[in-house]
Amino acid sequence: MNEVIKLLNGHRSIRKFSEQPVTDEQLHAIISAAQSASTSSNVQAYTIIRVSDHGMKEKLSVLADNYSYVLECPVFLVWCADLFRLRTAYELHENPDGGYISTTENFIVATVDTALAAQNAAVAAESLGMGIVYIGGIRTNISEVAKLLKLPKYVYPVFGMCIGYPDQTPGQRPRLPLQAILHENTYRPEQLPEPIAQYDRTMKEYITQRTGGKRTSTWSEDMKNKLKTPARIHMKSFLEEQGFLKN
Amino acid sequence: MNEVIKLLNGHRSIRKFSEQPVTDEQLHAIISAAQSASTSSNVQAYTIIRVSDHGMKEKLSVLADNYSYVLECPVFLVWCADLFRLRTAYELHENPDGGYISTTENFIVATVDTALAAQNAAVAAESLGMGIVYIGGIRTNISEVAKLLKLPKYVYPVFGMCIGYPDQTPGQRPRLPLQAILHENTYRPEQLPEPIAQYDRTMKEYITQRTGGKRTSTWSEDMKNKLKTPARIHMKSFLEEQGFLKN
Repeated sequence: MNEVIKLLNGHRSIRKFSEQPVTDEQLHAIISAAQSASTSSNVQAYTIIRVSDHGMKEKLSVLADNYSYVLECPVFLVWCADLFRLRTAYELHENPDGGYISTTENFIVATVDTALAAQNAAVAAESLGMGIVYIGGIRTNISEVAKLLKLPKYVYPVFGMCIGYPDQTPGQRPRLPLQAILHENTYRPEQLPEPIAQYDRTMKEYITQRTGGKRTSTWSEDMKNKLKTPARIHMKSFLEEQGFLKN
Repeated sequence: MNEVIKLLNGHRSIRKFSEQPVTDEQLHAIISAAQSASTSSNVQAYTIIRVSDHGMKEKLSVLADNYSYVLECPVFLVWCADLFRLRTAYELHENPDGGYISTTENFIVATVDTALAAQNAAVAAESLGMGIVYIGGIRTNISEVAKLLKLPKYVYPVFGMCIGYPDQTPGQRPRLPLQAILHENTYRPEQLPEPIAQYDRTMKEYITQRTGGKRTSTWSEDMKNKLKTPARIHMKSFLEEQGFLKN
């Protein structure tokens, strides 16, 4: 196993940061690595908003499920899927009808482009000794976040990301057995029950140990609870208003 | 700049592979790195289908825009967003009503989880001296692909990925200037025209040189053409039939 794979395998989300700052030069190196990720037909359909203003970070940390580390992290980035820039390019040559901008295909392209770039940024930051955590909570009050960041139509915040030097060394959560996620030639539902049962035992042990017995739930129980609870059901109407997913 | 960032910055998509095989051990190391990526609330909502059957690869290469490298690459993976596994977990504890599985939020979670894992796999493969290319073309005939791979409901192929040792050294396409993609505190549309114009000049020069003058289009022209042309407009109805994006 080489050093890069060791780095990737060693990932843990970091939610407590030291006061050591991240320099602009470092941040630009991280963003440059992000930009080097693959992008569908070179559309580069994402925009990164660095939120440096303290008041805005305070508001965002409340809007994003009250995570204090959104406020406390040295660098907070909001990763946005962005088709507005494409429309800007389009309008340099065409009437402002937008073409086929609102398709579900373009929504996927922009979302995937954003995630690929962000993951490169995560790896780059960790290679510099920093830690990161993705903030899906940015979607909990997505309309307010979009207003605060003045996002134009055809842009939506996919997730946030805290970056900084770690001030904690959290344990690493085990993952599903390989058998559950890697299939050969066709999808094999019959391949799932055994690794899920195995993972349930692993996670129960892990969670029990980590919480000193306060939580003892299995993975499948956690997933059941997740699917049973409505979460961010505003996403569809928000995205449609932003000009996405029309056809 | 450290070695990891150098590796990330050096990414080029590879579309021609040598005959040197990728071992199962290497593939498993790549997948393990993929699994180490962040995942929303530990849902791990993706499945990787390795297509090793020659006949199936032949069919997929035709379905995916006739890319010969889908057939020729040593390893071809289809990266699927997967909520079916979550539903399987759910049904261990609940009636099979599926809960809130079909929300747009869960669609985003699964799509992002898939992309983060895939990008880690890409980085891991490149760290081993291999090359990769993402195959968005897998969505061009997505219903046929889903049938061929026997994908159950709540699973969709986000993209394919060819992996192998490079038998080419393609040039590296320049990216948009930093100013176009990094904003501070709020989205600033006024920040776009200048870097787009600058990038248009850069890309025109790059494309003209690379194609010996056969193509001379700018980036904004390419984007205009892209938005003007309907592409994969079947995605919405396909995804709805698969159980996604209902609410």
